Amino acid sequence: MQRITINPAQRVADTLQLNSEQVHYLQRVLRLRAGDRFIAQDGQGQRWQGQLTETPGHAKILSTLAPSLRPATLELVAALPKTGFDDVVRQATELGVTDIQPLLSERTLLKPSPKKLERWQRIAQEASEQCERGYVPQISPPLNFTEWIQDRSVTSGNYFCVARVNAPGLLPCVQTLLSDSPQQSIQLVIGPEGGWTPEEITVAIAHGYQETSLGLGILRATTASLTALAIISSVREQLM
Amino acid sequence: MQRITINPAQRVADTLQLNSEQVHYLQRVLRLRAGDRFIAQDGQGQRWQGQLTETPGHAKILSTLAPSLRPATLELVAALPKTGFDDVVRQATELGVTDIQPLLSERTLLKPSPKKLERWQRIAQEASEQCERGYVPQISPPLNFTEWIQDRSVTSGNYFCVARVNAPGLLPCVQTLLSDSPQQSIQLVIGPEGGWTPEEITVAIAHGYQETSLGLGILRATTASLTALAIISSVREQLM
Repeated sequence: MQRITINPAQRVADTLQLNSEQVHYLQRVLRLRAGDRFIAQDGQGQRWQGQLTETPGHAKILSTLAPSLRPATLELVAALPKTGFDDVVRQATELGVTDIQPLLSERTLLKPSPKKLERWQRIAQEASEQCERGYVPQISPPLNFTEWIQDRSVTSGNYFCVARVNAPGLLPCVQTLLSDSPQQSIQLVIGPEGGWTPEEITVAIAHGYQETSLGLGILRATTASLTALAIISSVREQLM
Repeated sequence: MQRITINPAQRVADTLQLNSEQVHYLQRVLRLRAGDRFIAQDGQGQRWQGQLTETPGHAKILSTLAPSLRPATLELVAALPKTGFDDVVRQATELGVTDIQPLLSERTLLKPSPKKLERWQRIAQEASEQCERGYVPQISPPLNFTEWIQDRSVTSGNYFCVARVNAPGLLPCVQTLLSDSPQQSIQLVIGPEGGWTPEEITVAIAHGYQETSLGLGILRATTASLTALAIISSVREQLM
């Protein structure tokens, strides 16, 4: 069933006050009418069955649905590519990412505006509605590599993907990690087009990140993010 | 080193006659000048080191490079989505696909023009140059499902991806298949947005296809293609 994501403040007792965007989506895009049902989610696992009423912008909550289980943490830390990050956010959400941290690299000269962050958050929300995942990934404001890595001291499940062919493959690393505990949190770090500098790799390893490779092929940064997430999601689902 | 894909007829003895597009790419985009070197590939594994000369549109072949090994066959048969197939072609090429067969579904009303096929072939060629794979995938003219499946009788390594959660997962299927012979040919069939009809699934199984699932999440068709290819490429590289 079609879903929308609501803000907790929109729910008052057993009614929902819809905003104009939600009304547009439900009535114009999905063509629902008074009496038709839909699912409202809060993006954090809570879900309700809603029903449009005759009053414009108003819906009734018919029932509280069983909450979605909180998914295992899967964080994508990715250098912003010149283009294509919208698609990365959308596809990463489909593949079950829970958190996204964009990084600014030397090749990303302009810091994206707060508007951009809102846009990515909206794309993530729409993708989570379409793929029927109850959780909307949280997207953090972009940081540069040095800001991001300082004070970090990581243990297992933190992978720094490099283009070096002789680094261990991500697939066997993740299989070993998750075979003991499929719910283990994972953080994946994907570099910019053109790869990490040797200094960045050294710093990441010093902070406890494990270097891993996505294989022999040269992947664009956007393809690399999706490849890594596809591998992790498949291994996790195989073991759960 | 930067590469271009040439047609065998462009190579005469130890010279290359470049076409206007190649001249534009080498001189305007890559800013190479007379005396600068590049790699020419035929898209079928042969590669040469070329060098621009002072004569416009003319290059010298300095040496024949070791040919790329023919990659194991990995065919993607995918229902054409409404939008996004250009990205599928590009990313599938990065992930090592060798053949692409677009399928027309009931939801794809218009048969794409021959121009579209040329465009996909050009995208595949450019992606293969950028990711430094010596092979350019072959893209066949679109067929509808019934035309495509008739006369097919397949054995192992042919996967029909369905959205049914209780179908066996693609990852374990491919691991079992490739553990004996990592070079085994694989054909992956990915359905349209909205999924296969029960009749299509029945027909595919009757032709020997193995039903497999890409997991619990609902993936868009374009994300499903890339997820499946990422899994296969990772398993193959782990075993080779």
